[in-house]
Amino acid sequence: MSEPRQVTGWVSNVKILGKIAFIEVIDDLSLTPITIVVKKETNSELWELVSKVKLGSALKIEGKEPQQVVSKKGRELHAEEVQILAEPQDLLPIDVTGKTPASFDDYINYRYLALRLPKIRAVFVARSIIFQEVRNFLTSRGFLEVNTPKIVKAGAEGGATLFSVDYFGEKAFLAQSPQLYKQMLMCGVPRVFEVGPFFRAEKFSTTRHLNEGWGLDVEMGFINDVNDVLSLLEELVTHVNKRLVESMGDQLKSLGFNIIEDMKQFPRVTYDEALKILNSNGFDLKWGEDFDPKAEKFLGEYFQQQGTPAYFITEYPWDSKPFYIMRNGPQKSYAFDLDIRGIEIASGGQREHRYSELYRNLVDKGLDPNDFKFYLDAFKYGMPPHGGFGLGLDRLVMVLLGLQNIREAVLFPRDRFRLVP
Amino acid sequence: MSEPRQVTGWVSNVKILGKIAFIEVIDDLSLTPITIVVKKETNSELWELVSKVKLGSALKIEGKEPQQVVSKKGRELHAEEVQILAEPQDLLPIDVTGKTPASFDDYINYRYLALRLPKIRAVFVARSIIFQEVRNFLTSRGFLEVNTPKIVKAGAEGGATLFSVDYFGEKAFLAQSPQLYKQMLMCGVPRVFEVGPFFRAEKFSTTRHLNEGWGLDVEMGFINDVNDVLSLLEELVTHVNKRLVESMGDQLKSLGFNIIEDMKQFPRVTYDEALKILNSNGFDLKWGEDFDPKAEKFLGEYFQQQGTPAYFITEYPWDSKPFYIMRNGPQKSYAFDLDIRGIEIASGGQREHRYSELYRNLVDKGLDPNDFKFYLDAFKYGMPPHGGFGLGLDRLVMVLLGLQNIREAVLFPRDRFRLVP
Repeated sequence: MSEPRQVTGWVSNVKILGKIAFIEVIDDLSLTPITIVVKKETNSELWELVSKVKLGSALKIEGKEPQQVVSKKGRELHAEEVQILAEPQDLLPIDVTGKTPASFDDYINYRYLALRLPKIRAVFVARSIIFQEVRNFLTSRGFLEVNTPKIVKAGAEGGATLFSVDYFGEKAFLAQSPQLYKQMLMCGVPRVFEVGPFFRAEKFSTTRHLNEGWGLDVEMGFINDVNDVLSLLEELVTHVNKRLVESMGDQLKSLGFNIIEDMKQFPRVTYDEALKILNSNGFDLKWGEDFDPKAEKFLGEYFQQQGTPAYFITEYPWDSKPFYIMRNGPQKSYAFDLDIRGIEIASGGQREHRYSELYRNLVDKGLDPNDFKFYLDAFKYGMPPHGGFGLGLDRLVMVLLGLQNIREAVLFPRDRFRLVP
Repeated sequence: MSEPRQVTGWVSNVKILGKIAFIEVIDDLSLTPITIVVKKETNSELWELVSKVKLGSALKIEGKEPQQVVSKKGRELHAEEVQILAEPQDLLPIDVTGKTPASFDDYINYRYLALRLPKIRAVFVARSIIFQEVRNFLTSRGFLEVNTPKIVKAGAEGGATLFSVDYFGEKAFLAQSPQLYKQMLMCGVPRVFEVGPFFRAEKFSTTRHLNEGWGLDVEMGFINDVNDVLSLLEELVTHVNKRLVESMGDQLKSLGFNIIEDMKQFPRVTYDEALKILNSNGFDLKWGEDFDPKAEKFLGEYFQQQGTPAYFITEYPWDSKPFYIMRNGPQKSYAFDLDIRGIEIASGGQREHRYSELYRNLVDKGLDPNDFKFYLDAFKYGMPPHGGFGLGLDRLVMVLLGLQNIREAVLFPRDRFRLVP
């Protein structure tokens, strides 16, 4: 027996085999329970206590690790003292043994109970690793982490899809992205990133959209061209996935997650090439049309067959992209998307950094330059060429873990039918 | 001369001494400029170009570092190629040489230009280090990083001080804190933290409040008592300050920041003791009253004289604290504040984890338990004893750097008169 140690956690299973009680407890951030062993012959009082413990109770246990572990789950503690800190007062709405699945909604309504189940807990441990590694990578590349306002006067894409807020009698909006702010900063800091929430008031009904999400925004100045941005994003995603697989790939696989074990180089296909692939495979899309989820899904499968889950689509039609994107000839732009497994994860491009061209772009998109004065001003004082991207972190979690619904990647998701919890 | 290297950045000063041009450039995240040297006799064409370069221009320079650096600022590059990427098209609204100070408002209106000034740039580099170190410390202590919703149905302190949002026809609010969510999570994960924005609709007029800020929220389960929380918070702040001083303490000092070089153990005084100190020094406060900024300032000076800028005030009257705080006898509570330099930085305590007591607390505070059902439910299924705190990250930046106004610690601050930029 080793030194005494303390374990705290929740009872996820109770088995009484003859005169030995085996209590499984989910402790710390573990993805497998630790088995608490109490023998009647050693301590009959303690045995009485634990053999009646209710499923789901919160316990504090003092004990020692045995030299030889019997339980299949790998971790064992021979208890010397057990304290019941809290017991369920009601029938548990989720089976914490994991044998009987609950409804999709109950996993969200009782997220705290669902988090005791290894498969759901694993998602949020993975999520925290993904967030950490995103920031570590960018910090190591000389990007400054910033925070920009979430209550704003003007939206980057106009006001149609924004939640409005009464700001002391003035009409304001919830920020859909830090786009305008991160670009303004390019006139004073060469590289910035932000991890924060974003808000979209659209009436989505998909498994890939939420009305509130967490995003990564990156902007880099002094670029040579848009390829600098593509390369950075490719390295970022590859790094994050690699670290995720190193940290918990085996656990994720044994829990049944369809992870991406190896990320190859991301192909870079132009919009024109992607359109050709689609139209020579039964689609009938016209130049300029956006790719719908069906087309995206097809492209995902097409590239997966070539062994690569991630790919860039570049040179989008300018008409389909926001005003701040730089034009590439009369019809195209330097905008791109990154898709992984047929789902759009990030969207970015080189920006228009020349004041007069940017002003014209605003007018061409039907926006009023007066609404954007605070932003346009930044382009008057030595704004270098720059580019960047916005990346949906909830979606990144979703595709790296092979989840089917973005609601599985978010603790308390917000869609138009869900404001509680 | 060393290997060729590339420098990109903005011209912050131009000096022509005889036939040598010295161009100071703010590059990367540096807090001192690099001096670009061009001699007329070596390259007269390049000398012509740079000697006419406008202050504030964005440049890309290829050159070599000399073996011996002449300029006092320490870094030098002998240019072989200079490309002017963008020139100011208008008079610079901020003197980028730093000689003539601009107005407080202009440093915010033109934040991107202000960020080229070492003293303002340093604040945001320090801020990013503080954010990183907060997260690193908590992750290393087994806390799970989480994200909770910012659009919510119920506020932790009732609805009076919340911004309201129309959520698809339903009345919702912007979250003032993750309080309810982080507590619910204590029924499934033992330790969580979140770094995110918070929103308060109060009509503040102080140098310490904003209507939108970034906060750290921490909650830890299975605590023995509130002292576990106090110790964690003390270690966290001490760690963050230590890492800040190690990373850039000398630079901050030479730029004139009044940093805290050494953090001693934080004294823990009770509310009663603090009241006694105040009232025996000319104040006339009654038991139960909150300490106003004047009293806080006095306490800050009082403890500073004893050599400690940081101190806890514990055992606050229960009446002055929110419903979720655990009572300590009939009148007191297990709530505490952390003040640094006379400013409240964090507020926390042990929470009431027992369902029936919590229910009664809600009623006692005049709140309707029906509005909190989704939260109360979590206390039915094995909620362990827990405690935590909320910490204002903008304020932490402010006090660790010795800033006078919280607006100096935030890129684009939001107060009731400022929604732009």
